[in-house]
Amino acid sequence: MTYTSFTPPRRTLMGPGPSDISSEVLSALSRPVIGHLDPLFVGMMDEVKSLLQYAFQTKNEFTIALSAPGSAGMEACFVNLVEAGDKVIVCRNGVFGDRMIQNVTRIGAQAIIVDSPWGRAVEIDKVEQALIANPDAKFLAFVHAETSTGALSDAQALCKMAQEHKCISIVDAVTSLGGVELKVDDWGIDAIYSGSQKCLSCVPGLSPISFSDKAVEIIKNRKTPVQSWFLDQSLIMSYWSGAGKRSYHHTAPVNSLYALHEALLHLHNEGLENAWARHKLQHDQLAKGLTKLGINFIVPEDERLPQLNAIYIPDTADDAKVRNYLLNHYNLEIGAGLGDFSGKAWRIGLMGYAARNENVALCLTALEDALSQS
Amino acid sequence: MTYTSFTPPRRTLMGPGPSDISSEVLSALSRPVIGHLDPLFVGMMDEVKSLLQYAFQTKNEFTIALSAPGSAGMEACFVNLVEAGDKVIVCRNGVFGDRMIQNVTRIGAQAIIVDSPWGRAVEIDKVEQALIANPDAKFLAFVHAETSTGALSDAQALCKMAQEHKCISIVDAVTSLGGVELKVDDWGIDAIYSGSQKCLSCVPGLSPISFSDKAVEIIKNRKTPVQSWFLDQSLIMSYWSGAGKRSYHHTAPVNSLYALHEALLHLHNEGLENAWARHKLQHDQLAKGLTKLGINFIVPEDERLPQLNAIYIPDTADDAKVRNYLLNHYNLEIGAGLGDFSGKAWRIGLMGYAARNENVALCLTALEDALSQS
Repeated sequence: MTYTSFTPPRRTLMGPGPSDISSEVLSALSRPVIGHLDPLFVGMMDEVKSLLQYAFQTKNEFTIALSAPGSAGMEACFVNLVEAGDKVIVCRNGVFGDRMIQNVTRIGAQAIIVDSPWGRAVEIDKVEQALIANPDAKFLAFVHAETSTGALSDAQALCKMAQEHKCISIVDAVTSLGGVELKVDDWGIDAIYSGSQKCLSCVPGLSPISFSDKAVEIIKNRKTPVQSWFLDQSLIMSYWSGAGKRSYHHTAPVNSLYALHEALLHLHNEGLENAWARHKLQHDQLAKGLTKLGINFIVPEDERLPQLNAIYIPDTADDAKVRNYLLNHYNLEIGAGLGDFSGKAWRIGLMGYAARNENVALCLTALEDALSQS
Repeated sequence: MTYTSFTPPRRTLMGPGPSDISSEVLSALSRPVIGHLDPLFVGMMDEVKSLLQYAFQTKNEFTIALSAPGSAGMEACFVNLVEAGDKVIVCRNGVFGDRMIQNVTRIGAQAIIVDSPWGRAVEIDKVEQALIANPDAKFLAFVHAETSTGALSDAQALCKMAQEHKCISIVDAVTSLGGVELKVDDWGIDAIYSGSQKCLSCVPGLSPISFSDKAVEIIKNRKTPVQSWFLDQSLIMSYWSGAGKRSYHHTAPVNSLYALHEALLHLHNEGLENAWARHKLQHDQLAKGLTKLGINFIVPEDERLPQLNAIYIPDTADDAKVRNYLLNHYNLEIGAGLGDFSGKAWRIGLMGYAARNENVALCLTALEDALSQS
């Protein structure tokens, strides 16, 4: 067999991630590799830490980027905090709430499931009932921005409720970080994880995570060892503890971290509030155009994620045919439906660098063309 | 606080990894991101699979690159194959054999430890005694190329012995793949993992792994679920099952996989045997020069890894001072000692693209200079 170098086309990425990446971030990615214990690299990791603290709006000392995708970040939060036999209230309103449940049960812990409809925010009242009915629950876990449905939940209210009921909160911010308001310290979030390839507009493969001091205390006082060696955060923490103190754990993904540093730098320079406003503005533009095309949103307006627009596929349209047309004719990727929404929905991402006038304009024109073909 | 883009210097990487990377691989890394479910990307992943089959010398259908570093590859092998209560014979002759033990015990399985001296190959006789003494052992695990000590073990003999005693073999090939002879099918290896950042000369962050059909059967017939959701290979397999059949699991590290594809392409074009011979040739050159400098190897000649040269720090030399001098004066990284060898050894890597005349020449001259300064 003969092989040749892979030369991908230049796509516009408006699916559920990976999102569009700026040329500056791609350029940072391909800078010369240096050692993961090189003092210069350790210094850069320190900056990644403080830039992540800014992005998460936290002073948490334990704020790092995990050397694996967001789903490993989710697992890291659960396996480090939760022990066999613990009771965890898990809110499920999409694919990723369901994945949380799988994480809880694989630990041998008990998941108390609070179901809310797909395409809606987590129902606060139901969560409160579950908290009252389960006074022995130790954790409350939910997804801030459900990537599978485009629904935004009220993280602030949920975390307040968790505190009132002496529960530790575990929050999935994979799609929310950088795209909508998120304030870890103000909202009292205890454990949070995200992904590099959504609103941060970095390459996929890293998972920013942060633990409050209270969460760190729980990790330090576990009765049993963390079941995963790779994800054991007590080992990871000393790997991220800065110049002179770093102890070897694994080899960090050096180049991906260059890219994350650059992407976070851009977010810092733009300012978080400005980034949130930009996502909202572009979402409004997109929504106006989609409505003109007669396309309906799945999520009610006040629960919608600006950065991930889940829409019903028009009855007259062929799901795969339209997406392939967009891809082949316009090099434009939009996302298919996931789980319950498979074949019924499209997901249009406006994440990070993709939340720009050019992208919205292309998407609306291309979609109109594609729909007229089917 | 003000942040600026991180611009690393151009180092020559002759430590235990990450290793030097060619400009072609760096260039592949920074090609435009496309979706991880894009048909073109799925096609490239198929090529990565067959290129990895070539590198591992296997027809194993289950041959993929895990979206996390080699230590996650290690954990993936253990958590998927081993269940609580199982008996695993683990050979320990350095840091990574010890890490295997930690993986086994975190599963709730029993590790039967066979210790061989640091800086030596695994002692075959001792392993055979352990196999005889533990007829109920299900697995034999060992490190082919110990990165912490520079010792090469006889994987062929060990795997043959495992088969004779009806044990499944689990082999750490993090530093061996691409650098020394390794034949998964001929040697009857059941589960094997490696890292992208050693002799493959790709960026760090990926772990090539391969399971024999026998190992896959064990995974399929587990009595208990795999404790890790992220590393559950029954889920991963359908993610890597090619066009039309792919089911969503996580977002693959798209750009790192471009780089791995390119790095494997280079290995394929050079030819495995040629790559092995090149590592040996450069090692001989380096060894000759080191001997001239009066420097002694830790590992006896016939157990030495060509790609990782562990040497005693001369009595007259200051460990940190010499390494810092090399780094600051020559932009040359060599590795410190690890574990038992901390402060006693240096590790000079000649991995992948770093196994070149230029590197050996620079290293010898620079080291001579550095030693004369202390």
